[in-house]
Amino acid sequence: MNRLINLLGIHVPIVQAGMAGGITTPELVASVSNKEALGTIGAGYMSATSLKETIRKTKQLTDKPFAVNLFSANLESFSTDIGDMQIFLNRFRKELGLDAGTNSIKTKDYLQEKIYVILEEEIPIVSTAFGVLSSVLIDRLKNNHVKLIGMATNLDEAQQLEEAGYDIVVAQGFEAGGHRGTFDVNKFPEGCNIGLLALIQEFRSHLTVPFIAAGGIHTKEQIEALLSVGAAGVQLGTRFLVAKEAGTNAAYRAALVKAKAEDTVITKVFSGRPARAITNRFIKESDKSGIGPSPFPIQNELTKDIRGAGKEFSMAAFQSLWAGQGVGAIGKEETVEAIMNEISPEFGHVKEAEKKTSE
Amino acid sequence: MNRLINLLGIHVPIVQAGMAGGITTPELVASVSNKEALGTIGAGYMSATSLKETIRKTKQLTDKPFAVNLFSANLESFSTDIGDMQIFLNRFRKELGLDAGTNSIKTKDYLQEKIYVILEEEIPIVSTAFGVLSSVLIDRLKNNHVKLIGMATNLDEAQQLEEAGYDIVVAQGFEAGGHRGTFDVNKFPEGCNIGLLALIQEFRSHLTVPFIAAGGIHTKEQIEALLSVGAAGVQLGTRFLVAKEAGTNAAYRAALVKAKAEDTVITKVFSGRPARAITNRFIKESDKSGIGPSPFPIQNELTKDIRGAGKEFSMAAFQSLWAGQGVGAIGKEETVEAIMNEISPEFGHVKEAEKKTSE
Repeated sequence: MNRLINLLGIHVPIVQAGMAGGITTPELVASVSNKEALGTIGAGYMSATSLKETIRKTKQLTDKPFAVNLFSANLESFSTDIGDMQIFLNRFRKELGLDAGTNSIKTKDYLQEKIYVILEEEIPIVSTAFGVLSSVLIDRLKNNHVKLIGMATNLDEAQQLEEAGYDIVVAQGFEAGGHRGTFDVNKFPEGCNIGLLALIQEFRSHLTVPFIAAGGIHTKEQIEALLSVGAAGVQLGTRFLVAKEAGTNAAYRAALVKAKAEDTVITKVFSGRPARAITNRFIKESDKSGIGPSPFPIQNELTKDIRGAGKEFSMAAFQSLWAGQGVGAIGKEETVEAIMNEISPEFGHVKEAEKKTSE
Repeated sequence: MNRLINLLGIHVPIVQAGMAGGITTPELVASVSNKEALGTIGAGYMSATSLKETIRKTKQLTDKPFAVNLFSANLESFSTDIGDMQIFLNRFRKELGLDAGTNSIKTKDYLQEKIYVILEEEIPIVSTAFGVLSSVLIDRLKNNHVKLIGMATNLDEAQQLEEAGYDIVVAQGFEAGGHRGTFDVNKFPEGCNIGLLALIQEFRSHLTVPFIAAGGIHTKEQIEALLSVGAAGVQLGTRFLVAKEAGTNAAYRAALVKAKAEDTVITKVFSGRPARAITNRFIKESDKSGIGPSPFPIQNELTKDIRGAGKEFSMAAFQSLWAGQGVGAIGKEETVEAIMNEISPEFGHVKEAEKKTSE
């Protein structure tokens, strides 16, 4: 039996990535889970109230299991050392009709409260990025039979997750869109940018827990190929960004349909953490400014109003257009139903992967 | 029929990469070709005389076809603007008992002469990196029925090769060891670092000529997986570096057996062109010095004596330890025979790939 299917109570070994920032609507998550794959609420930046509401709405649309994605990194921060960045960003704010930036930035962390909601709502699967949850939280989740999926960008991170008790590891290849899951961002990029095929080979040789391949995946043949080299399943983000059910705005959708792999870059300018996005005016001018981004999550908070206006006015130039290197394969908007029908692997291949894993 | 096998007169769709710098001995090249795959003489830095000698020796060991790899970039250069770099490098030279560096650097190009040798020796296949050969040379080779293989790191480069008349393109993934094949190094890294699976998907959608997958490939299952997603064949470099027949020195071999994907970095410090190597003291101290490397091939000539001494004294700290991100899969030295027996794809998979290509 395929280990992922076994562990998660799904029937198709495909995970919809827990993309943060309003993408993972209840409709998206439920549609994926209704197709017997794993939908995921991207709750990294959510408040506990907002998470609870999203979970409840999703439950109205599906009775299948779905996951919640959280950040292991602490989001509590305060900084007054943001003057140069604010002066730079005020140029964009003026153009967008926004108020000038403040002199200090403060962010709050709702991780504990969100874990409480997850247990209360009996969510069966939690996935995390940016590190390992504290042992207290891991124990609390595991005592309540929650399965844990952790994202890793290299073998060391994967082994940390395994040792901490995670059930499944996501192998995030260099190709992946959005934030690199890298634990210690100060070490980036050394040893944190590994192509998916090479990363999987390392995980296959050294991990005991099953792993999910992520990064640039768009076709059924790619999925079958990844299962044949040892992945227990695959995680797709970019492919679901153009799903009709996703919360992606029109300008972002248009950019995704147009872009090729060559158009994506890894940048820290939006959040302070490295992430892959389609290049645009905001990235180019930030790079040219020579003003280094503040650390995560300060930089994320600093650029929030500008990104918000970019979404509201549907202007691609001011948004974080997260996308993986497989973006060239996207040709049009589709329903989750159509996407899943196109990419779900043949059962024969799943069986073949199982056979190999159990050998 | 598999298009690569058809075009090249081989029976196994595996190409041994044309690694420069004394790696591709006649024994290595002939052993690969004798196993019905494609051996390649890495002649990028060779003189015409040396190439002729290597070809003759290889012919004594095999009657099967083999290729010669050349650089499309012009290797003729002269520079006196090297003072800071020489002062920095002199620290290493002192340690190694070498003479201090000169005040000017001059390099010569032997491309025309090498093409003459290739035609004279009736070499059936030429592969190139760093660009497109001039139309004069392409015509001369094609008029003599030489098949042309060109390396590309993105779709634009691949299309340039196709339009110029190349028969086959190598899709060089971000994972690959040694030099990035990127044409315009001034643009690097934007759009030149694409993970292999995503790169292949782009080539499959947009190219007419067959393409070969390269970068981090070590296992038979990976090869079969890559054939199943559209590659006509695969090219392996790192895997052949530890072949007993290769010209790899002992310290380099030891580093390859020990290293993981996490230990490789892309650096310009050895040659002035970006290339993936196992990190070592030379790379770390060069980075820390803040002295930017000279352009290719000046920097290559500047570091030549140091790298030479590193090889002679078998000191890994002073060599360019080129390696791809698949290096973690290397466990020991092996003969070409053993490697080929382990990795040659099942014929069924080759047939499946053919079927898809001809659809």
